[in-house]
Amino acid sequence: MNLKIALLSGDGIGPEVLAQAVKCLQSVETTFNHHFTFSPALVGATAIDQTGTPLPDETLELCKNSDAVLFGAIGDPKYDNDPNAKVRPEQGLLKLRKELGLFSNIRPVRVYQSLIDRSPLKKEIVSGVDFTIYRELTGGIYFGEKKINEKGTVASDLCEYSEKEISRIAHLAFKAAKSRRKKVTLVDKANVLESSRLWRKVVTRIGESYPEIELDFLFVDNAAMQMILNPSQFDVILTNNMFGDIISDEASVITGSIGLLASASVGADNAMFEPIHGSFPQATGLDIANPIAAILSAAMLLEHHGLIEEAQAIHMAVENAILNNVVTPDLNADSTLGTDYVGDYIANSI
Amino acid sequence: MNLKIALLSGDGIGPEVLAQAVKCLQSVETTFNHHFTFSPALVGATAIDQTGTPLPDETLELCKNSDAVLFGAIGDPKYDNDPNAKVRPEQGLLKLRKELGLFSNIRPVRVYQSLIDRSPLKKEIVSGVDFTIYRELTGGIYFGEKKINEKGTVASDLCEYSEKEISRIAHLAFKAAKSRRKKVTLVDKANVLESSRLWRKVVTRIGESYPEIELDFLFVDNAAMQMILNPSQFDVILTNNMFGDIISDEASVITGSIGLLASASVGADNAMFEPIHGSFPQATGLDIANPIAAILSAAMLLEHHGLIEEAQAIHMAVENAILNNVVTPDLNADSTLGTDYVGDYIANSI
Ligand SMILES: CC(C)[C@H](C(=O)O)[C@@H](O)C(=O)O
Ligand SMILES: CC(C)[C@H](C(=O)O)[C@@H](O)C(=O)O
Repeated sequence: MNLKIALLSGDGIGPEVLAQAVKCLQSVETTFNHHFTFSPALVGATAIDQTGTPLPDETLELCKNSDAVLFGAIGDPKYDNDPNAKVRPEQGLLKLRKELGLFSNIRPVRVYQSLIDRSPLKKEIVSGVDFTIYRELTGGIYFGEKKINEKGTVASDLCEYSEKEISRIAHLAFKAAKSRRKKVTLVDKANVLESSRLWRKVVTRIGESYPEIELDFLFVDNAAMQMILNPSQFDVILTNNMFGDIISDEASVITGSIGLLASASVGADNAMFEPIHGSFPQATGLDIANPIAAILSAAMLLEHHGLIEEAQAIHMAVENAILNNVVTPDLNADSTLGTDYVGDYIANSI
Repeated sequence: MNLKIALLSGDGIGPEVLAQAVKCLQSVETTFNHHFTFSPALVGATAIDQTGTPLPDETLELCKNSDAVLFGAIGDPKYDNDPNAKVRPEQGLLKLRKELGLFSNIRPVRVYQSLIDRSPLKKEIVSGVDFTIYRELTGGIYFGEKKINEKGTVASDLCEYSEKEISRIAHLAFKAAKSRRKKVTLVDKANVLESSRLWRKVVTRIGESYPEIELDFLFVDNAAMQMILNPSQFDVILTNNMFGDIISDEASVITGSIGLLASASVGADNAMFEPIHGSFPQATGLDIANPIAAILSAAMLLEHHGLIEEAQAIHMAVENAILNNVVTPDLNADSTLGTDYVGDYIANSI
């Protein structure tokens, strides 16, 4: 298969970890006889520094003309805590999602049994946790009308959803549940929000066409509790943009290994794959960042294009590295192995 | 002191636990020579069943004319999961908050060292946790304009905040931090929301008049992670209505003893005190519900009216009960002691 892949390394440790993902994809190319082309482009704080905008037009064009986007991380402390900043790295990411129509953010959360002691939760609680979150990514309060009055004393954000926006991601969630444990949990706040009541109505109706899937509902405040009390109850979680942002970050830490979690952002014509960890500015250039989340993002990319066996090969190489303790210091405090070394090791064992 | 207290027991276990709080207040009356009058009124599903509305006018009137409201719990499964329900118990609670102007919800979260093993988190992580959440309670997306188009295909909720709404609760949070560890953490989503940027601006400015208080900022997704990874970093958390709903419920379970947590909802002229647990319908009438959260809500009521020593007496009686293992089965699986027994024990040791 030929695949054109846009490489958006972004800020902080983004470039370092993405380089390891590329090594693994190149290893897959050779082993399975595919042809991948990689085209780098600017995004985030790096792009602001060099071009004045967090998402240059060329970057957007490149992404639109690629089969997939591999994304590193964005964010730089110098743009945080400045409520008056006119340009922010995050705007690049939000615009990219919107322009590429990436309406569904998919985050698998799985506990690695050999790393279970790293979880902040008790072993009995996280053991066996294995679920996937479907977060709506191009609607809701993120993209609704924003207002501030002239005096700057009243500000607002509109959370709006249409039936169409809800149903397209709901279908993806139900389909995913089919090949899993057959349960979808809608997380909303239908006891307070009109938009949540629309979610509940639409998702309930769609659920009727998936009779083999159990559908249940949790208010978001309760979901935030259940994530800690009993996360193994979840199979597929479906939720809106804002609740998904919060719940999926909460979910990412219960496993104890945020450096292992990948995500896919999928639309009708495009898809983007990225580690869920951030740009981790303090670690930049130190060769200590864990490359596994980026490498598993590459595996999701392959899977998305139907290259199941190839994705499986990456998963096995990663598990092999973990079992043999070829990991960065975040997974094993005694480790002296670096990002690059671990990347090579995984790429070579594919 | 004379205090007129409105008793809104509500649904499920509400009446049972509130009865224990009243016993304790009566014990304080005798011991410290005060005069409290208790006036019961309907709210929630019980009120819907008996009057057709979750907040009858007489209840609202009574609350307005009282010095404090003691609230049990609301919610009944028969009103959940019905997106088309015209009347819901929650509406009663929201209307009560709005009409009484209870703009600040205050939730202390503290780990009882003797109960630390009950936490779903590892001991090292929760040990010593002691913070308070200030959640804005009468603004934001809860009360902003709600719309649904005629076809029922597009729905929206408006999240709006004014400088005034932000500053009045911010002052309470800073003042609280003064007599604590002198740190306020604002939880928002200023990298995406206009209303959050207003929060950041207003709170930063107010912070300047409290130079002894350290002010820091966390995006809500990060806050949801930090609550699990390192909750002892928090002293006073300040946040909006929606984020507060999620973060404070998440916070309530990390201690492992949600049955011990009380809250106050405070406005300019009124104040309401309630356990943070729900109506727990399955336990209704079984004499197994933990009365401590309700009892500690009564302590917060006394404290609010300047009766510090009296509140302290309740706290000591509660700690004594826990130390002597006079607790309901949720805190000790071997316990056969009931709600009423534990309530009597605590009231008698005041
Ligand atoms: C950087 C930020 C705008 C973004 C979001 O809130 O969506 C991030 O938190 C994420 O979850 O990808
Ligand atoms: C019952 C519900 C409307 C309420 C809220 O969301 O505020 C509850 O969850 C709470 O936190 O008191």
